[in-house]
Formats: sequence, structure tokens, C-alpha cells
Amino acid sequence: MKATKILLNAALRSPELRSKSISFIGLGRMGSEMAYNLFSKRFAEATDSHFVVCDAVEEATKSFQDNFLGQFPGAKLDVVKTPQEAVLSSETIITMLPSTPQVNTVYRQLTGIIPTLRSFPSAGFTLLIDSTTLDVQVARSIAAEVIDTGADMVDAPVSGGVLGAKAGTLSFLVGGMSTAFERARPLLELMGKRIFHCGGSGAGLGAKICNNLVLGVEQIVVAEAMLLGQKLGLDPAVLASVINSSTGACWSSSINNPVPGALPDKSPPCERDFEGGFATALMLKDMGLATNIARNTGAPLPLGEAAEKLYAHVLVEDPQLIRKDFSSVYRYLSQCAQEGKRVRIEEIASAEEKS
Amino acid sequence: MKATKILLNAALRSPELRSKSISFIGLGRMGSEMAYNLFSKRFAEATDSHFVVCDAVEEATKSFQDNFLGQFPGAKLDVVKTPQEAVLSSETIITMLPSTPQVNTVYRQLTGIIPTLRSFPSAGFTLLIDSTTLDVQVARSIAAEVIDTGADMVDAPVSGGVLGAKAGTLSFLVGGMSTAFERARPLLELMGKRIFHCGGSGAGLGAKICNNLVLGVEQIVVAEAMLLGQKLGLDPAVLASVINSSTGACWSSSINNPVPGALPDKSPPCERDFEGGFATALMLKDMGLATNIARNTGAPLPLGEAAEKLYAHVLVEDPQLIRKDFSSVYRYLSQCAQEGKRVRIEEIASAEEKS
Repeated sequence: MKATKILLNAALRSPELRSKSISFIGLGRMGSEMAYNLFSKRFAEATDSHFVVCDAVEEATKSFQDNFLGQFPGAKLDVVKTPQEAVLSSETIITMLPSTPQVNTVYRQLTGIIPTLRSFPSAGFTLLIDSTTLDVQVARSIAAEVIDTGADMVDAPVSGGVLGAKAGTLSFLVGGMSTAFERARPLLELMGKRIFHCGGSGAGLGAKICNNLVLGVEQIVVAEAMLLGQKLGLDPAVLASVINSSTGACWSSSINNPVPGALPDKSPPCERDFEGGFATALMLKDMGLATNIARNTGAPLPLGEAAEKLYAHVLVEDPQLIRKDFSSVYRYLSQCAQEGKRVRIEEIASAEEKS
Repeated sequence: MKATKILLNAALRSPELRSKSISFIGLGRMGSEMAYNLFSKRFAEATDSHFVVCDAVEEATKSFQDNFLGQFPGAKLDVVKTPQEAVLSSETIITMLPSTPQVNTVYRQLTGIIPTLRSFPSAGFTLLIDSTTLDVQVARSIAAEVIDTGADMVDAPVSGGVLGAKAGTLSFLVGGMSTAFERARPLLELMGKRIFHCGGSGAGLGAKICNNLVLGVEQIVVAEAMLLGQKLGLDPAVLASVINSSTGACWSSSINNPVPGALPDKSPPCERDFEGGFATALMLKDMGLATNIARNTGAPLPLGEAAEKLYAHVLVEDPQLIRKDFSSVYRYLSQCAQEGKRVRIEEIASAEEKS
């Protein structure tokens, strides 16, 4: 309420005040960790900084504010209710949202970012950083509209998960013009460890989606191979160690191995019934982004499409896995093996067409 | 002819002579490099060693002999025509053959290894090392028959390709009893860098097949992702560098990347029109070994089966790729993209069933 009042009074903050302020829209599991790192490190650099948070869930902003001001009692952190207020308050706005529909709303609705930038041309020096993983074509058209108002924008999706967000060790895959990238870089460095400039608008997203396409397929085939090896009587720890020092080595096997006890350390999600990690539903979303681009651009994606069908099938068959780490596809395949059930892409595809 | 005469005279060599001799059966691209390393290093250790080579292709043994004796004029290297003679000559026999049918023949035919071991019980201290990649169940039954004669046997398939064979940097994945493994190890160390004892009989093969299952799927999805990225306007070198420092990183992307210019060094097969490397036909064979085990053991293998179908489809559509590196699946998918042809597993499977 306090912040809303300020904005009603101030409308567009003075350029000087606005330049000292950063707005963060989207305080989900990733966003809240990223905002915490960004604000606390920025506050250490400049104690006269202003911070603004905005989220559709009121509880999320309130608890973030309480937590942050508890840690940094001298800091200025306002809660706002609309993206409009976030833009009027701050020269820099970071968005970290679930996916395409939310980005469309936050940027394009009447009280959204783009109409606000259009109504307040003097806010032109604004920098938008969108860290959401969304449809590349939507992201590119939004960026074009933002840039058309005179503002800068980059897409900057992340890799590294909630643990990386918390530790400030994310990788940012950035797309946009060099000037926008150079403006964004110092802020991204407060939240992440490696910042890649992947090319023009949408290139960061494209790289992220391509990486997760590979990852999503790898995690399934590692599950298949670890299961097959056990059927042959191989010790999972021996098999994992062989694969991890051979040509099959990948993150899905060496860090996110889905078989309890297969890795020397007990850190992968399988050791805690697949809790934490990267939700299967989010991996399915990312596979969908890849197959959608493939259809629109005419790129063949045989295994990507097969993997998307399989993740969708797994979540229909075992909805418990929706929020569990995507390596839990191993749990599903193990159950099928126990029941002597084959899992074939062509059968899943045919069942899908019939339904 | 010389060697044959010796054997006709000597039948089973004296245990002392036999213990100094090593026979190598199968001088293909891999086998000839492995035998060269083994014999030359062994000769450096003990100049009174004997060596014996055997191959169905007479030219292969002749040229190996000429080359080896040219390099080591003091060495004793005989050519024999049958596995029987190879067993009678040497206490240690290494086999490196194309696949299951050849192993069956070499071990089980009348002049093969097992009938010979049965006919000459005093050859009991024989050690058999089979480095072929073949069907696990066939390998296990052969090993059981060999062990039943009193001989030792390990399965010891390799990872590392022709380059690794030549450089002596292969990885050996070994299955068999500890005593047999310990006998084999010093010899394997002359041909490779890393020697893994994976478990009992067949475990080395099982580990190899599981690794190559992961590898074969990874190489396809990396091809898909690199193609998708280019459709989005991404620079392949930037995309490869992002994937290779993210969760999608794998050998297929960081060493065997299928896009010319994507890696800083010019070593992957794509830089020489996919010549050299690991033939697509061999990868298809390995995927077939994996899907065969899956069917026999009831392990679900959705992406493994999809990948097998895709490799088979690619080789039907573009038989030129049979001997090219398996990363050439990228070349096929690129052509499909140019022609606007989608490649879908369910369509390949349905066409396969109809034909």
C-alpha cells in the first residue's frame, strides 16, 4: 500500500531516483533467490539504492520484503502491485516468470510494461531483462515492441536451477544488442557466474532451449541405460563410473544420476525421492518450446519430439512426478520394467492421437 | 605356411614356449592397431616372446607381419590360419572380431577355440580375452564353455576408437572372475590406459553396450539441437560453447560436434566429410545389441529403440553414411530440413512395419 501511494503521488520518479532503483517482477522459487542476491549485493555497492518487487501472489512479495528488510534494515524496498508501477519506479526491470502467457500479460496488459513505456516516453532509458524461459518468437516480438519505445531489452534465461540461483552461480544466456548486453552485464554478474552473449534478440532463449533439449533427452537415455545395466546384473555404481569416464559421460549421469547409490556423493535428487531439482513439468514445458520451434522452422527433431511425448506420457501415468525432479522418469521406467511393460514411442504417439 | 608347418609338427607347443607366446585373432582396423601396440611393447619387455596372428583375410595377416617384422627384425611373429593353431601356439589368445556371428565361429567351429581346448586338456592354463562387442548372452555362454575346459576368460570390449587403439589409450571394460581379470590386466595395460573391472562374465560388454546406448542417443540429439539453433539464427560456435559449459555438455557436442566450425579445433570427423571416426553401421549394431537385451530382459528402452530405428532409417535413406562417422546423422537431418521433411519416429516405425 505504501508503495502504491508513493507512485500515485510521484507517477514517474525523477530520472535520478529512478536510476538508483531496480524492480524485480516474479518472486517464484528462482526469482526470489535471484532478487535476494541482486539486491543484497547491489545494496553493499550502493546503500542509496532503491528496490521494488512485484508478484501476482501478494504473500510472495510480503515475505520477501520482511526477509530482506530483516537482513538489511537500512535498505529501501517497496512492494508494488502492477508492472506499470515497477517501470515508473525503476530504470532497470528484471522479469522472471513461469512462461509465455505470464510474460505476455506482464509486458502487454494495460497496466503492463510496454503500454507504460509508451505512455511515459521520458522513461525511455529503461533496461528490461527477461530471465523467463519462453517461446522465442513471442520473446522476439515483445523485445521489438520494447525497443520501439526507446528502451533496451535482453532475453537472459538461466541455467543452474534453484541451487545455482541461491548460490549466485547461475549461467545467463543472453540475447540482444551489444549496448543492451553491456548495460545488463553488471547486474547479471550479481546473480550469476557466467554470462554468455549468444547473439541478437532471442538468441539467449534459443541457446537455453537447445541446451535443455539435449539435457531432457540425455536424462531419459541415462535412465534407460542404468536400468538396462541392472537387468544385466551390473552394479549401478560401477556402471555410472564407467559411463562417467567414457564417451557417454554427461551431467545427467555424473551429477543427476537417477539411481540411488550410483554416485559417490549423495547429492542428486534421487537420494531424496526426487524432491528438489528441476521439475518434470518444467522439463516438459522446455521440450515443448523446442518442438514448437522445430515445427515452425522446419527443423527435424525426431528424438526431441519422442522425449516430449515420453515426458507427457509419464506425467499422465504418474502425476506424482509433476513436481519431482525430471530424473524421476527413471522411477517410472523402473515400475514399467517390474510390470514387464514395454514403453514405445510409436505406441504413446498412437494412443495420443486416439485420445 | 611356415607357421602351419610348425604346428603340424608340434601340435601343442611345450608349456614353456606356449607361455611366452600371445596369439591375436582379428586384424581389422581396431585389432591391427591393438596387436601392434601389444606385441611391440611386449617385445620391449621380453625379446624371447613369440607372437601369432590369425585373420580370415590372408592379406591382413601378411601385411601385419611384414610391417611388424620390418619394425622389429628380431621378433618372432607367425601367421596361422585357424583359431586352433592360435590356441595350440599360445597361452594367451586375444580375439577382436566384427560381432556375434564371427565370435561364434571362431570359438565354436570344429577348428575353433573351444573344441581345441576340449581336445587338448593340457592347454588348460589358457587365457582368452575377447575384445569384440557382441551379444551379452552369447558371450556369457561362450565364456561358460571356455571356463568349463579349465581355461580363463574375460570379455574386454574397448572404448576409444581407432585413434585410441593406435595411441594405446583405449579404455577396457572387463567382465570375468577376479583371477582371470588379474591375468589379463598387464596385457590390457599394454594396449590401453584405463582398465575397469565391471563385474562377472559379460559385465564388461554390458557396460560397453550401456555406454554406447547413451552415446548413440546423445549424438542424435546434439545434431537436432545444433540444427534447431541454426534455424533460430544462432552461431554454431556460440551454441556449442554454451552447451559445452552447461548441463547439456557431452562428448558428442564437445569432441564429436557434427557442425563444421562449431569447435575451436578442427579435429571432429565433420571437418573431413565425416570420414574416420566410428562408423554409423557400427553404432547401429551397438544400438541393436542394447535393444535386443532390453527385449530379452524386459527393460523399457523408448529412446534407445527410437534411436535404433532412426539410425537404420538414415542408412536406408543415405547408404553413403554407412562407413562415415555416426555424427553424420547431422548431415541427413540437415538435408531433411532443407527439403522441409519432418522426421518422426512413429512414421519411421510404421513404414518399417509395412515393409
